[in-house]
Amino acid sequence: MRIAILGSGLIGGKLGALFARAGHQVTFSYARSMDKLERLAAEAGNGARVGSPAQAAKGADVVLLAVHWSRIDDVLALAGDLSGKTIISCSLPMTNDDKALTVGHTSSGAEKLAAKIPQAHVVSAFSTTPGEVLFGVFEAKGRKPAPTLVYCGDDRKAKAIAAELIADLGFDPLDAGALWLARYVEPFSLLVASIAYDRGGGAEVSYRIERR
Amino acid sequence: MRIAILGSGLIGGKLGALFARAGHQVTFSYARSMDKLERLAAEAGNGARVGSPAQAAKGADVVLLAVHWSRIDDVLALAGDLSGKTIISCSLPMTNDDKALTVGHTSSGAEKLAAKIPQAHVVSAFSTTPGEVLFGVFEAKGRKPAPTLVYCGDDRKAKAIAAELIADLGFDPLDAGALWLARYVEPFSLLVASIAYDRGGGAEVSYRIERR
Repeated sequence: MRIAILGSGLIGGKLGALFARAGHQVTFSYARSMDKLERLAAEAGNGARVGSPAQAAKGADVVLLAVHWSRIDDVLALAGDLSGKTIISCSLPMTNDDKALTVGHTSSGAEKLAAKIPQAHVVSAFSTTPGEVLFGVFEAKGRKPAPTLVYCGDDRKAKAIAAELIADLGFDPLDAGALWLARYVEPFSLLVASIAYDRGGGAEVSYRIERR
Repeated sequence: MRIAILGSGLIGGKLGALFARAGHQVTFSYARSMDKLERLAAEAGNGARVGSPAQAAKGADVVLLAVHWSRIDDVLALAGDLSGKTIISCSLPMTNDDKALTVGHTSSGAEKLAAKIPQAHVVSAFSTTPGEVLFGVFEAKGRKPAPTLVYCGDDRKAKAIAAELIADLGFDPLDAGALWLARYVEPFSLLVASIAYDRGGGAEVSYRIERR
């Protein structure tokens, strides 16, 4: 698949590198500098490229949105028309100081995002796992049991694409349901983040949800 | 430990039975009928008793609160003085139709509860796992890896008690932090419940959160 990374920061950089390793055609965009983008593409290898958000999005089958919440409107404006595209968002609706969610309970970041791009197909994924664990999970791919990664969305085809990409990275995709379930998934992401970053013991935290 | 069950419904009944099996002195209270309470105590065995909420709470080291959210004020009024006691709450702040949380994002049921009984020590636990899985986990106790059960609270001693009871039931207790983390734990409970009850495949769902 051709994957546009909108937001090539800590998480977008890692996910893009792993998608490239998994055999996808990745274009990195929207970092602090063109140097950063070039470095990410060189490190990722496997034909990874750099471009503007519009260039990245234009030919993409899938757009990964991995910007800080404060940058959502900016990056969407730069990306141009996203009609009909699968948008996988791992951007949590954090306050500027990153201490809390700006929205929850009666809505979610994923729903707010979907309202901004109603012609696109938003799937919420990859927010529930710290970036620190991504390479380890990828390298252990195939080993059972794999850690779970939950996702949710309203478009069946977009969700199937997300599930495929989740599995490509070594996780066991778990369909949590419709996009509004992000009201539960986003707080869960912060629960996992709190365990990873605030409780001691290291951030390489993953989870598995299973039937007995 | 002497454990008062306030709310001997589906979850309270199961947890009480398992606490009794684990060797604790359990008193069931607050069900629809005295018959129901007597039946629960007989089934639980191991010296389990029945009583009024006040009788149950009076001599208890730990109070398990397992009522529907609409009954919180009623059961607290009946229980009497809970000063200094460890209160483990698995009561999610659900609407009367059980379709959504009544509070979230900027507060949580656990925090609302703690505000009602400021002299007691509230720990949020046992809401993140469906009742259907409890007996299976208990029977598999000692088998590794055990499923995780997260808990949170502000009082160190009360949390240690909760962790001990969680382990007694076969789970691996995971301290998620202070009581306000219930803002994340409660939505996570609904995420697990949605996976258990709305996605097909059976409700015997457990989870494990771990460092790699």
